[in-house]
Amino acid sequence: MDSHLLLIDCPDEKGLIHKITGILFQHNLNVEDQGEFVDQATGHFFMRTEISGSFNREVVVQELGQIVPSKATVRLEEKREKNLVLLATKEPHCLGDLLIRHAYNELNAQILAVVSNHEHLQELVEKFDLPYHHIPAQNLSREQHEQNILAVLDDYKPDYLILAKYMRIITQTLLNYYQNRIVNIHHSFLPAFVGAKPYHQAFERGVKIIGATAHFVTEDLDSGPIIAQDVIPVSHTKEASDMVRAGRNVEKIVLSEALRLVCENRVFVHGNRTIIFD
Amino acid sequence: MDSHLLLIDCPDEKGLIHKITGILFQHNLNVEDQGEFVDQATGHFFMRTEISGSFNREVVVQELGQIVPSKATVRLEEKREKNLVLLATKEPHCLGDLLIRHAYNELNAQILAVVSNHEHLQELVEKFDLPYHHIPAQNLSREQHEQNILAVLDDYKPDYLILAKYMRIITQTLLNYYQNRIVNIHHSFLPAFVGAKPYHQAFERGVKIIGATAHFVTEDLDSGPIIAQDVIPVSHTKEASDMVRAGRNVEKIVLSEALRLVCENRVFVHGNRTIIFD
Amino acid sequence: MDSHLLLIDCPDEKGLIHKITGILFQHNLNVEDQGEFVDQATGHFFMRTEISGSFNREVVVQELGQIVPSKATVRLEEKREKNLVLLATKEPHCLGDLLIRHAYNELNAQILAVVSNHEHLQELVEKFDLPYHHIPAQNLSREQHEQNILAVLDDYKPDYLILAKYMRIITQTLLNYYQNRIVNIHHSFLPAFVGAKPYHQAFERGVKIIGATAHFVTEDLDSGPIIAQDVIPVSHTKEASDMVRAGRNVEKIVLSEALRLVCENRVFVHGNRTIIFD
Amino acid sequence: MDSHLLLIDCPDEKGLIHKITGILFQHNLNVEDQGEFVDQATGHFFMRTEISGSFNREVVVQELGQIVPSKATVRLEEKREKNLVLLATKEPHCLGDLLIRHAYNELNAQILAVVSNHEHLQELVEKFDLPYHHIPAQNLSREQHEQNILAVLDDYKPDYLILAKYMRIITQTLLNYYQNRIVNIHHSFLPAFVGAKPYHQAFERGVKIIGATAHFVTEDLDSGPIIAQDVIPVSHTKEASDMVRAGRNVEKIVLSEALRLVCENRVFVHGNRTIIFD
Repeated sequence: MDSHLLLIDCPDEKGLIHKITGILFQHNLNVEDQGEFVDQATGHFFMRTEISGSFNREVVVQELGQIVPSKATVRLEEKREKNLVLLATKEPHCLGDLLIRHAYNELNAQILAVVSNHEHLQELVEKFDLPYHHIPAQNLSREQHEQNILAVLDDYKPDYLILAKYMRIITQTLLNYYQNRIVNIHHSFLPAFVGAKPYHQAFERGVKIIGATAHFVTEDLDSGPIIAQDVIPVSHTKEASDMVRAGRNVEKIVLSEALRLVCENRVFVHGNRTIIFD
Repeated sequence: MDSHLLLIDCPDEKGLIHKITGILFQHNLNVEDQGEFVDQATGHFFMRTEISGSFNREVVVQELGQIVPSKATVRLEEKREKNLVLLATKEPHCLGDLLIRHAYNELNAQILAVVSNHEHLQELVEKFDLPYHHIPAQNLSREQHEQNILAVLDDYKPDYLILAKYMRIITQTLLNYYQNRIVNIHHSFLPAFVGAKPYHQAFERGVKIIGATAHFVTEDLDSGPIIAQDVIPVSHTKEASDMVRAGRNVEKIVLSEALRLVCENRVFVHGNRTIIFD
Repeated sequence: MDSHLLLIDCPDEKGLIHKITGILFQHNLNVEDQGEFVDQATGHFFMRTEISGSFNREVVVQELGQIVPSKATVRLEEKREKNLVLLATKEPHCLGDLLIRHAYNELNAQILAVVSNHEHLQELVEKFDLPYHHIPAQNLSREQHEQNILAVLDDYKPDYLILAKYMRIITQTLLNYYQNRIVNIHHSFLPAFVGAKPYHQAFERGVKIIGATAHFVTEDLDSGPIIAQDVIPVSHTKEASDMVRAGRNVEKIVLSEALRLVCENRVFVHGNRTIIFD
Repeated sequence: MDSHLLLIDCPDEKGLIHKITGILFQHNLNVEDQGEFVDQATGHFFMRTEISGSFNREVVVQELGQIVPSKATVRLEEKREKNLVLLATKEPHCLGDLLIRHAYNELNAQILAVVSNHEHLQELVEKFDLPYHHIPAQNLSREQHEQNILAVLDDYKPDYLILAKYMRIITQTLLNYYQNRIVNIHHSFLPAFVGAKPYHQAFERGVKIIGATAHFVTEDLDSGPIIAQDVIPVSHTKEASDMVRAGRNVEKIVLSEALRLVCENRVFVHGNRTIIFD
């Protein structure tokens, strides 16, 4: 008995849900969980269905292809744990949180390895018996450095790259291979405080809330589709360093929540927005 | 061109979504918005569909009746503003909030009248040109008092009774006529602090958050199905009277949010829980 | 028996609290509530003290003047309800919320009048027996329009101007007279989405939280010292118009919370930040 | 140059702040941070002052003793990292979070050892080179088991015991030695859902928010003074097991926040409430 995910997005059309579920019904499949959404502005249809039952995947995909509009994207995947490679720099809080979750099977994903441009986190990663790849960036262009990372990734072929406080800008070199598959955690409630030292920017601006944003990485810095955000209140008694400390709690929770959504295929990217079935 | 809501709940069965949407498709109806949910614990199916198009309501309902399980509840209703009667006692904040929304068509419902066991709010209600019925409770049993209220309600036949800080316990007398149609706002994050003076209870207990809960009224005090809840932080500097003041903000927002959900038929009651399509 | 507020800010110095409270003690005054804060970055001291007792105000102020640093600001004011003039445009939700609070003495301030560049809200304001001044802006420069407003304000001499969804940019003309005394509510979690149509900007950006910000108005649009902020979660199912509706709840609560803080003299402005004793 | 904390609580009296800060001023000490609070209901005064400078501790304490009321508690302590022993059972999320923080000096406290009634977490703790004491509870009365724990604690003499998901009821045996020094994390927004399986209780009750509460342990189960609380929204789609998973995030953040407050001596216990200077 297989458990699968059917993920469809296409221009909206009358009768789509009926036709799609009809094929599932004809194959005697159980719909365990289903969500649909039509983006009114663009007339685009999204559907995520968890199904169980035995079936010939090729046949079902072919039949689905015949009833959806021509510009549809249809994915029918076995439900499985996704494979991740984490990228980090020096800060341990997001990485450590993921390592603990992974060690106790709470991540619903497999961490294959950790890549870092520094050595600082090696000891932590090795406590958890995971490979640590130190790929220094000194004297390298961003592209050369990313080529070195790609060479390591080639051994792992992860589903997603997770930037667990990886403090370098990502270029097209990596993006070409991991389109909508790189998740970053930014330490502000985007679009406020793009770029470096957002907590210091927040302190200077005198905001009363700070936050964190998990998003897919695109060519534009801190501007990709947002997956999850959360905030906490701060008062005037908190200096930038206090915000850094308090913000870590938000960052790691938001990142892990985004990973849950991404790894369970609950997230569709639509332009610069995300559709999330949760 | 009509706009309708189809609301179905029934024991879950394979193919339900397919069959139901099939009937809509055969009648050439547009699905504007749809949500389904299966409660795994009870194997119960819920579906809310907004449809547009011209159709013979009786025919569609009959056809739906043929394909759903025998114990199904099928409602196919024109989308329309619901009619409300508000019950209040002395406090103006929830009532005033609803009156302002109503006056500016932000409520998505019609307030037909306000009923109160006191005279305090008459002036406020009449500013907004709505009928105010003062139905005193002195020297009456709860049942007699509610009979007097029922006599007034008989002129209005509201869809829902909204207890906008109505500080009396509701008995079976009213409940018999308004099963799952009475919405109350309780000034605590239920199930904490059931009953009288919840903010004073909260102060005594030394909680760091206070809240409010909108719920359907049942025979058991403050124990009916919860529709919406929200909370705010408090610190030791807040006395019970400060909590009362701060809590009013939460109460009125939670109540109006619950009204939106209820009046748009987004809420299914399932045992003592609610299923909410939003 | 008077109740007063002592508000001091000055460069920090050893022994300040001791010396200041010493003068209060010598005059046999009760300290009902006290807060101090030293901004470490600038070495600036802030203190807010609620005192009760009978005293000669001039003598106490003179004595305080002798023990604080030369660049100190010392205010010793009777606790009293502040006088407000509200400015609005067309939207009723913030204005209506303040009117209801005012009518039931929950505002802790007196609304003297409402000024608007449109006629839309006149009926609402007059329900509450308050003067409404329609001051149209057509064919006038911003400065000319604000001169007309100033002429009206001259009759009221309010402590604060409250921009309750007043949709026009404020110029130096008004600011000259109301430095740090104009409170605006902006419908985003600033500094995100400065300027027009922030909910539409938020929708385009695909954020998962929206918010509102109450701040003092300065020459730079939406960039003045922040008094209060709050946020609510949104999902992909919410269009810009849904965000507008949901955001109103946050706006009115944040504005009224800011008013409470400002009207109780709980807010010190320090550069572009606020120090808040609550 | 020493950095100290002065912690005073006593019946309120006119001039207390003046007199206390006077002694600090005479000794030429710097007040780095200060907070005071008077609980109006009980007329009790609380003060927390961070001071720096060189002084004779005994002399200052003696002088303070002469000016505070007879029933005062005066503590003048060097600022130092507190020593903790953690108690856990089987769940790794709170424990793991504290271990990571500790390993990277983000805890502002020293973890001396971990005690557990099970073996499950030994491997995790030993990754971080900390002693793990497995003290089984089988066939022992609660009191006997706690005596065994006390024997281990005797080697460490911790300032606080932290119950990081320690799933056993604490008796007077331990409380006698650690009055107001045992911090527990309970997985509900107390006082809702006292006792076992609070998420399952929450699911049954159909709440729309769940939470966690850090509190000092007292004789009454889950009823001690609350230090910190937080909540997250849940919807009908979340089963009890989903709440367990989501709740872990809240639990570990609330516990670590409570530890920060406790370890920085920011918390006074007053009856069953806490006064927190933050």
